[in-house]
Amino acid sequence: MKLFRYGQPGAEKPGIEVDGVKYDASYLINDYNEEFFNNGGLEKLRSDFDPDDAVKVDEFERIGVPVSKPGKIVCIGLNYIKHAEESGSDIPKEPVVFFKATSSITGPFDSVVIPKNSKKTDWEVELAVIIGKEASYVSEEEAMDYVAGYAVHNDVSEREFQLERGGQWVKGKSCDTFAPIGPYLVTKDEIADPHNLRLWLKLNDETLQDGNTSDFIFNIPKVISYLSQFMSLQAGDIISTGTPEGVGLGFDPPRYLKPGDVMELGIDGLGTSKQTAVAYKENG
Amino acid sequence: MKLFRYGQPGAEKPGIEVDGVKYDASYLINDYNEEFFNNGGLEKLRSDFDPDDAVKVDEFERIGVPVSKPGKIVCIGLNYIKHAEESGSDIPKEPVVFFKATSSITGPFDSVVIPKNSKKTDWEVELAVIIGKEASYVSEEEAMDYVAGYAVHNDVSEREFQLERGGQWVKGKSCDTFAPIGPYLVTKDEIADPHNLRLWLKLNDETLQDGNTSDFIFNIPKVISYLSQFMSLQAGDIISTGTPEGVGLGFDPPRYLKPGDVMELGIDGLGTSKQTAVAYKENG
Repeated sequence: MKLFRYGQPGAEKPGIEVDGVKYDASYLINDYNEEFFNNGGLEKLRSDFDPDDAVKVDEFERIGVPVSKPGKIVCIGLNYIKHAEESGSDIPKEPVVFFKATSSITGPFDSVVIPKNSKKTDWEVELAVIIGKEASYVSEEEAMDYVAGYAVHNDVSEREFQLERGGQWVKGKSCDTFAPIGPYLVTKDEIADPHNLRLWLKLNDETLQDGNTSDFIFNIPKVISYLSQFMSLQAGDIISTGTPEGVGLGFDPPRYLKPGDVMELGIDGLGTSKQTAVAYKENG
Repeated sequence: MKLFRYGQPGAEKPGIEVDGVKYDASYLINDYNEEFFNNGGLEKLRSDFDPDDAVKVDEFERIGVPVSKPGKIVCIGLNYIKHAEESGSDIPKEPVVFFKATSSITGPFDSVVIPKNSKKTDWEVELAVIIGKEASYVSEEEAMDYVAGYAVHNDVSEREFQLERGGQWVKGKSCDTFAPIGPYLVTKDEIADPHNLRLWLKLNDETLQDGNTSDFIFNIPKVISYLSQFMSLQAGDIISTGTPEGVGLGFDPPRYLKPGDVMELGIDGLGTSKQTAVAYKENG
């Protein structure tokens, strides 16, 4: 299934796309959130949703993030060899883990706000994995049982805040609008092999990232099993699996976002998203 | 006001303590959460709560975390000079920032579970600040307007996971039960000077940490203003302001938690909490 949420920020309703047509699903389901996944929502939707009963979604509706109020966004750093190299980093021996604040979440077609005092706002197309049930100390063999589905994520990053302001990376990863996610949560059954998906990002129509999840250093079962040794993962949590080469930091000289720049990004089978970078405005 | 939440995990109700007596507040208020703070809940409680109308809380009730489902826990590392020294770290020029997963939250008298494969689980008494309304790009001068109140926090930390497993600190900070918070959210008006509070931690009745928030490198307005340049803070978010010297890592040889060890900790005016360390058990 291709699930999405539509409507104004904070007031999104659940929807489902069937054969390219978007339908409202709020007559069956309250929202796509932790409770939905924990209470068999995916199964209910699969068995009970019927396009004949449903109302089509207006094409001009805003698309939101496909999961409501995830408890955490856990990101894996440097999970593609060439991106580790372009970042001047060693190939990690264990997954590099950091968090993005959930307050950084924004819709897949919303603007990305370049923070006040930012000179180095950068892009990162990533495959996001959405957790479907609580995972604690799970093995690699059973890890995929805990996956609900996948989404496109732009792990927007401010490199000065991340790398030059002391301490941990979180400062450069958590600014408001730095996590455009969606358009869809595509359920696991629709993706034959999550470890063979092309992912790409264009800046103003120029392709800058063009990778494949087959190049992961740590694959999805490894990442889920690994994380679950350090923290429990809850339904709705988002695991972002790292970015391939081609981020602004890796160019010589580096390239960063300016107001008006347009990022378009996509992953095989998961759709595409598009964000325009805008300057921060006081009171707005 | 001294606010608390009582009841079994996930089913806590709001309460308020007046003159040392605990009362239920659920006849007035649903819960202490983001919505509560944003919708004038503190003011409502202050004007409408009357002990004569309220039911006393049974003394055997479990005490939970005083804030329900905070969006994030942001921690400041190395914010006391002597703790930076005992950790072998330089004095930071800017606040060191990291996140704890909100899934690590637990009640102030619940057990702390030593994770599977952990050898270095450690304690950290900290003053936690609870945000009362959304803060983005706020100045130091106005920062205290965004504070709802304060709580005792034990920022439990696994030092091998934090420091020896590659990458960022989050791996050693986010294990389940690693954030006992409470017993109270004490509202801002009850604390004359948050920068002059003694905070202490005893392990098995031996005092190991005994500091004062007057030793902060970065004070509360500075921390809130600083964080708000990198991310927005929402009502209910928890900012933990760092720990004074006396953590297990700082001893020679280091001292870490064993099953059965009892941590008791407190801060002037905010009450005390107490946790017993227990071994991780499969299925339990």
